[in-house]
Amino acid sequence: MHILILGAAGMVGRKLAERLAADGTLGGRPVTAMTLIDVVAPAGPAGFAGTIRTGAADLADPGAAEAAIAGRPDVIFHLAAIVSGEAEADFDKGYRVNLDSTRMLFEAIRRLGSGQGATAPYRPRVVFTSSIAVFGAPFPEAIGDEFFTTPLTSYGTQKAIGELLLADYSRRGFFDGIGIRLPTICIRPGKPNKAASGFFSNILREPLVGLPAVLPVDDSVRHWHASPRTAMGFLLHAASMDLAPLGWRRSLSMPGLSATVGEQIEALRRVAGEAAVRLIRREPDPAIAAIVAGWPRRFDASRALSFGFQPETSFDEIIRVHIEDELGGRIGSAA
Amino acid sequence: MHILILGAAGMVGRKLAERLAADGTLGGRPVTAMTLIDVVAPAGPAGFAGTIRTGAADLADPGAAEAAIAGRPDVIFHLAAIVSGEAEADFDKGYRVNLDSTRMLFEAIRRLGSGQGATAPYRPRVVFTSSIAVFGAPFPEAIGDEFFTTPLTSYGTQKAIGELLLADYSRRGFFDGIGIRLPTICIRPGKPNKAASGFFSNILREPLVGLPAVLPVDDSVRHWHASPRTAMGFLLHAASMDLAPLGWRRSLSMPGLSATVGEQIEALRRVAGEAAVRLIRREPDPAIAAIVAGWPRRFDASRALSFGFQPETSFDEIIRVHIEDELGGRIGSAA
Repeated sequence: MHILILGAAGMVGRKLAERLAADGTLGGRPVTAMTLIDVVAPAGPAGFAGTIRTGAADLADPGAAEAAIAGRPDVIFHLAAIVSGEAEADFDKGYRVNLDSTRMLFEAIRRLGSGQGATAPYRPRVVFTSSIAVFGAPFPEAIGDEFFTTPLTSYGTQKAIGELLLADYSRRGFFDGIGIRLPTICIRPGKPNKAASGFFSNILREPLVGLPAVLPVDDSVRHWHASPRTAMGFLLHAASMDLAPLGWRRSLSMPGLSATVGEQIEALRRVAGEAAVRLIRREPDPAIAAIVAGWPRRFDASRALSFGFQPETSFDEIIRVHIEDELGGRIGSAA
Repeated sequence: MHILILGAAGMVGRKLAERLAADGTLGGRPVTAMTLIDVVAPAGPAGFAGTIRTGAADLADPGAAEAAIAGRPDVIFHLAAIVSGEAEADFDKGYRVNLDSTRMLFEAIRRLGSGQGATAPYRPRVVFTSSIAVFGAPFPEAIGDEFFTTPLTSYGTQKAIGELLLADYSRRGFFDGIGIRLPTICIRPGKPNKAASGFFSNILREPLVGLPAVLPVDDSVRHWHASPRTAMGFLLHAASMDLAPLGWRRSLSMPGLSATVGEQIEALRRVAGEAAVRLIRREPDPAIAAIVAGWPRRFDASRALSFGFQPETSFDEIIRVHIEDELGGRIGSAA
């Protein structure tokens, strides 16, 4: 089967391509080709036996979506987006990248499927990464599957609109779509970044290699997490499961692990010891605390659980996944 | 104040213009000008003391939205849409009229407000008529204010997207918007039409003038109603109330009267007598019954009630409103 990843240069996209290359199959079928597209050409993953095509494209440019799907991929992972802060800072860019390009992709699929020259029906699986940012405070302590989407950011608005389009295009038979709202990914690999959510990963990732990390919020702050490995599992399951039982309610909040910062730190202590915990420096930042106070803390993701999506069950496990997947199995120290 | 009505040739638009002309004020301020636009030029209402401008325009045409708002209206009623059946039959037209033109209107307002040549800030009130079609079965017996929007029609999808855009553009300060989801309007004036919901009005309106009417569903069918007069009240209240207490949850299910067809008929009997009821001919239509079975039956519209929106409390009242407003106060017979 042929898999297209849009947004393949981002953290999730890269990990997904690597995972598909390593697995060699998806849902029991061999992966024979991958097309990887982003605004900058992504690197292809090592060790893939099939054909890899990589390309740089802005999906909101006329013709770009058509070109991306010209090879009639069986599965399309639509991960391409600009992040919340950028979509808030640049209103036009956010709508262009996060909404217009999504709609142009969906339209391109529709036209390819109904085109006069089509030799075979075309109705690919589309996996759309939505976001828990579709929800806006105030919300219940645990957000249920039927809670309404009232985003408080333009990014969340664009994702909520994407979910609606995905459901309607699926209902009309233009493709078979599913939207998944990923938990915050922890431990996010790489360097500390300036995202308001960065500290959830920083306070674990950095001490695990002997580096200091800053904690800007109180230990009582609760949030919703999944490891990169589990997030990949969600994407692969979404790409291969039978979607008919979902009806036209095609977007699902993924299950995750609800944990406080204090619980994260206790897990770090158990896995890596007191010396690691001592590398966390508390520097309260009221601005970050205020942003995080508006975020979901917990979901009742019964529906996703019933469809076979499986979260982590402890933060120890999330930390061990990071040590296995990113640190070669060893807790290290700074180079 | 200057009021713009988009979709002014439709039933709601015409009644709204007539009501504004008759009142002469909105929220205590004199209405000095009305601009009435639709795809065909609407007739201006009689008896209006201010300036009336009417025009024909397709809001999805480039420049049309800019031209419509060039007079910097203080209040914009955005009622323009094609109906559910047409949006389902013509996918492209539905998205063009119901989504693209809404977004183009919102963008035109944003640009007018931020334009270099602007002599004063521009941040009009926008009243958007959404629809209970944003909800899709299965739903609870009474749909609450925090229930999610999973439409089962392209029309409902387009309205749900309009609600999201309305909230985001309001949050960003480009205008002050409110979306209202009207109940089914009953008794809808005019001739019987082929809309699946037509019978709710037909079985009352026709017998009130001595004409026969067809009832295609069972007496137990329950639905959600408001008179045209009450719907106008909702629009005027939405146009003049303080919206700050809504936060950014800017779309509200309007309160209505939940009644069964049997209750409608009993009210007709009380108001117009047995002879009127005998004009209702039962002709079960399984296709219509199936469509109607997927519609909401009742809402818990607590939020709208708390903000001062007032529904009818009996079907007798809905029938009497029709007799007063459409029949000159008399139950008549066919001409």
